[in-house]
Amino acid sequence: MTKYSRTADRFNSSTIDPAAAEMLEKANRENVPTTWDRFEKQKPQCGFGDLGLCCRNCLQGPCRINPFGEPKEGICGADADLIVARNLLRTILGGTSSHTDHTYSAIQCLKSAAEGKAPYPIKGTDKIKSVAAKLGIETEGKSDGDVALEIALTALSDFGSYSEEPMKWLKVTVSRDLFEKWEKLGILPKNPDREIRTAMHQTAMGVDGSPVNLLLSALKLGLVDGYAGLQMGTDIQDILFGIPSPVKSEANLGVLSHDKVNIIVHGHMPEISEKIVEWARKLENEAIETGAAGINVAGICCSGNEVLMRQGIPLAGNYLSQELAIITGAVDLMVVDVQCIMPSIMKVASCYHTKVVTTTPVGQLPGAQHIPFTPESADIKAQEAVRMAIAAFGKRGPAKVQIPVHKSEAWGGFSVEAITGALSMLDAQNPLKPLVDNIVAGNVLGAVGVVGCNNVKVTQDQSTIELVKELLANNVLVVATGCTAHALAKYGFLSPEGAKKYAGEKLLAVLTAVGEAAGLGGPLPPVLHMGSCVDNSRIGDLLGALAAYLGVAIKDLPVAASAPELQHEKAVSIGTWAVTLGVMTHVGVVPPILGSPLVSKVLTNDVEGMTGGKFYVETDPHQAAQGILNHIRIKRRALGI
Amino acid sequence: MTKYSRTADRFNSSTIDPAAAEMLEKANRENVPTTWDRFEKQKPQCGFGDLGLCCRNCLQGPCRINPFGEPKEGICGADADLIVARNLLRTILGGTSSHTDHTYSAIQCLKSAAEGKAPYPIKGTDKIKSVAAKLGIETEGKSDGDVALEIALTALSDFGSYSEEPMKWLKVTVSRDLFEKWEKLGILPKNPDREIRTAMHQTAMGVDGSPVNLLLSALKLGLVDGYAGLQMGTDIQDILFGIPSPVKSEANLGVLSHDKVNIIVHGHMPEISEKIVEWARKLENEAIETGAAGINVAGICCSGNEVLMRQGIPLAGNYLSQELAIITGAVDLMVVDVQCIMPSIMKVASCYHTKVVTTTPVGQLPGAQHIPFTPESADIKAQEAVRMAIAAFGKRGPAKVQIPVHKSEAWGGFSVEAITGALSMLDAQNPLKPLVDNIVAGNVLGAVGVVGCNNVKVTQDQSTIELVKELLANNVLVVATGCTAHALAKYGFLSPEGAKKYAGEKLLAVLTAVGEAAGLGGPLPPVLHMGSCVDNSRIGDLLGALAAYLGVAIKDLPVAASAPELQHEKAVSIGTWAVTLGVMTHVGVVPPILGSPLVSKVLTNDVEGMTGGKFYVETDPHQAAQGILNHIRIKRRALGI
Repeated sequence: MTKYSRTADRFNSSTIDPAAAEMLEKANRENVPTTWDRFEKQKPQCGFGDLGLCCRNCLQGPCRINPFGEPKEGICGADADLIVARNLLRTILGGTSSHTDHTYSAIQCLKSAAEGKAPYPIKGTDKIKSVAAKLGIETEGKSDGDVALEIALTALSDFGSYSEEPMKWLKVTVSRDLFEKWEKLGILPKNPDREIRTAMHQTAMGVDGSPVNLLLSALKLGLVDGYAGLQMGTDIQDILFGIPSPVKSEANLGVLSHDKVNIIVHGHMPEISEKIVEWARKLENEAIETGAAGINVAGICCSGNEVLMRQGIPLAGNYLSQELAIITGAVDLMVVDVQCIMPSIMKVASCYHTKVVTTTPVGQLPGAQHIPFTPESADIKAQEAVRMAIAAFGKRGPAKVQIPVHKSEAWGGFSVEAITGALSMLDAQNPLKPLVDNIVAGNVLGAVGVVGCNNVKVTQDQSTIELVKELLANNVLVVATGCTAHALAKYGFLSPEGAKKYAGEKLLAVLTAVGEAAGLGGPLPPVLHMGSCVDNSRIGDLLGALAAYLGVAIKDLPVAASAPELQHEKAVSIGTWAVTLGVMTHVGVVPPILGSPLVSKVLTNDVEGMTGGKFYVETDPHQAAQGILNHIRIKRRALGI
Repeated sequence: MTKYSRTADRFNSSTIDPAAAEMLEKANRENVPTTWDRFEKQKPQCGFGDLGLCCRNCLQGPCRINPFGEPKEGICGADADLIVARNLLRTILGGTSSHTDHTYSAIQCLKSAAEGKAPYPIKGTDKIKSVAAKLGIETEGKSDGDVALEIALTALSDFGSYSEEPMKWLKVTVSRDLFEKWEKLGILPKNPDREIRTAMHQTAMGVDGSPVNLLLSALKLGLVDGYAGLQMGTDIQDILFGIPSPVKSEANLGVLSHDKVNIIVHGHMPEISEKIVEWARKLENEAIETGAAGINVAGICCSGNEVLMRQGIPLAGNYLSQELAIITGAVDLMVVDVQCIMPSIMKVASCYHTKVVTTTPVGQLPGAQHIPFTPESADIKAQEAVRMAIAAFGKRGPAKVQIPVHKSEAWGGFSVEAITGALSMLDAQNPLKPLVDNIVAGNVLGAVGVVGCNNVKVTQDQSTIELVKELLANNVLVVATGCTAHALAKYGFLSPEGAKKYAGEKLLAVLTAVGEAAGLGGPLPPVLHMGSCVDNSRIGDLLGALAAYLGVAIKDLPVAASAPELQHEKAVSIGTWAVTLGVMTHVGVVPPILGSPLVSKVLTNDVEGMTGGKFYVETDPHQAAQGILNHIRIKRRALGI
């Protein structure tokens, strides 16, 4: 292994997180390469790929388009517009497939639980009622389990449908005006799996030659992501595990414990992380018997968000911190499921005593212990994993342990139900009225959902923090999900203290009024943590409710979305859904579309005439903040407020 | 437009087809660029992509692996093996999605026809019986239409299933030993759409880190291709349009007519090409009234194969000839549906009077006339298209018309039913006995399915012809499908005369005996045209029948498959299915896997221990022929013959 010659400067350009920087120094000392080292080695990255101008969709290629000269066409005649559009649709298919497959697992878990075959108590009784109501399922005289089973079967029937009707879950979720708009555009999805298969076909060699037709399919697949991925997933997970409500916890690597067994849950599927948390609690005595002070579970990526939201489990770190958590030398076990798991964690873990457990059929890692979870076997598998952690604790190398002290108070659990619950303390009849009144009065300028990942191309957390600071200072209410919520958690944005530090004066007053009315004894956090990436549907629900209350369309609201540090294909599909909803969606990393003037223009401009939303590409967070503020002010003016 | 300075040498390295070479000269004269010009401009092609070492699966990339040094890992830690395996699975997903989506359209057409809503008479009464029998559908006392509807609904139920059972169509088609082998390997597919979605998820960033697990999914998706794409598609299409039986026609650009309206059908979906043929016949008088001598329909790619097999329609050319057909100046209308349609045909058509019609929602071309076909509207849409052709005929520029004289007699229609029908003339009780006896006696050394596309990287038709010549000279029976069958058609391999020219002495004797017994008055063609790419399932059926007759596994038969000039992702998924069946599968174009020693080794070696099949990569057709002959001889020895 070569010695890496990183300097303090290097660490500072890698991250603004002092805990991460400390671990990067440790990694350097201990000669453990990280993702930043690999990024350096990848430079310069391929400009063709960066611009979306590389096509590998048949064995005649690869073909590349030269933006500055010849060739202008691939071997089959596909030009830059067609190649970029096809690649973009495949990217969105990667994201949409990920979310729908995650959701499908959740449905299977609910079905099995409702049938009494899997050891998951169905906790979300309120959600059963609300979801049954929207689906038109009668609940009178039925047990929760029976209704939950009907809900699971209804979800599966969307996946099993061969009718030409649009998917039911979408139809019952969105407003009539959105539905009709999408119907007119011809982008209403049918069976989500069928749409995925058809769009994949559409991108194959010699099928669709129309970039515009491909972009319409991209919007359609954005809706598949939104309703068969995010919305259905969140609805089902809330039914299984309960609707989140505000809960106080902590964030950053400082949550790891010196004297307890440390288990990291990493990935996205709460049916796995919930069971690890449950059994970590139940088996704590076994850990104590072997000399540990107990068992400490902490989360990375959206597995972390899921168990923060419902169990108050602390966040260890976001996407770019996954290797760094292991580098503390204090992680006894990392349990992973799917998505955003760097294969490199196996090499990093091999430098420490850390064990890695994989849990799903499609997410395996050579060298990890594969413990295949099923809903039915979850208790047994979770015990097996937790006991592996307890055994590993005894093998920690004390000389290698260095846990950063950094951690911040962080509140999670702000579901729509929780937000409206807090607001109802001010107006029980019209919970949204206090919020809307404050927006109208200008005390809250607008609202922005800041979401997404880390990306090694961006100094970790920097764009997120800089952007959100400016939004808050301008009295914009911010809600967050995903690794972005982790980032904000680390710097206190998810704590009541953060309100005093970051919120503009008018916003602070509103947050304080709501927080005190809700009995928090102080302001709400200035950024409300609404959950995992799948939970972005909660933001959609909130926007829908606000629009309905005001009698306008979502596109008319003084709101925006932003993914300052997006990395995963899922972020692109989520963003596409947001644009389809009518939301201006900022992305802080340039997606590979600039090679096509047509695709760039459609996505950042023309689509606004169709859905009311559009993409806004800006890598500088200060510029982006100004662009978003400007957008919000334009929307306010149009509403006459 | 720049003047292209191609010389005769250039044309000779582009194609061995004199008609194609003549059209390339015409294109040069008329300054019309073709795919070969674009190929020249693409050189040198990207070595990373060529080796499969480029990853664009997240917005941190593109990442590239250097096979000769650093970097050895992408930003996330994915190494060459992982990146190549993921890319390969996405390639197979492209192919599998294409085939299953095609099949789904065919099922919808059958359903609509059986319900009396679409103007398709259900012609395949024998196939209804055999498919109903394998599916366990009772036929007694039911009309053909009712049984056909049940079959269509059974097919749809595989797509709609959420059970954990393997897909029914596969289970009822394959032998018990194959089924059990695949079961043991854990590669039996469930609902095909679900498998596509899950595998797409598996390839997303941070999901599967195991190249071997990804390759197992590749095998599974090969089975999805084989049974939800090819087998189900062929079964359904035979029910709709009839089981093909031997039919004499012609092939190559010389089939175009000087004095008739020329319509080219191009793509893959017979529900479109069959209707064009039907209405071209019905509206012939309208053409004659406008001064044409009639209407001549000819086919390109698999649309051509479908209507050759069932209607005796001549083949105009294969994949690389699609632009050249237009360059004759004699094509009045090209009707396209999906797959293998170069977007460039629009530019080429714009240099002539040729009109292009697109017909499906996912296959549009800017500048073409879009006439959206549905099963219900097919008659109206087909008439509209045919009348466009008649109108265009009057606008032909005589000075621009140059139709090559080259064409050859070509027989199509060799379905398994037709082959066993011919053999039954020799042994009515055991139709396979004469074939097997001749194999045992060494009169037929073995059998090879030569299939696939053209690829601009290979001199058009050359590898196919050279390979097949050597196989036939060594008394190997050859069956063919797809663009490979077109290639063989052009040079007389699909004619009885071809038997005398190309078949080894012993093979010729067998072909003559069968041909005369079947009343052909001479030998069978040395290459039996079994249909389109989707019809590769016919080869699977034949292999299954031979294996069952002999009481051995398919992997033990002295047979092989070869795709000498493959181009499309579909060819990779078909090849994967063949390997899963137990067939050694030669590919004459190097797929983008050489960057991974592991993937290369698994696919060309280790997989043989699992399925009995493997890939054999060899670009030189003579070497490939020797390799295949050697394989056949080894298999013969193992059988003791």
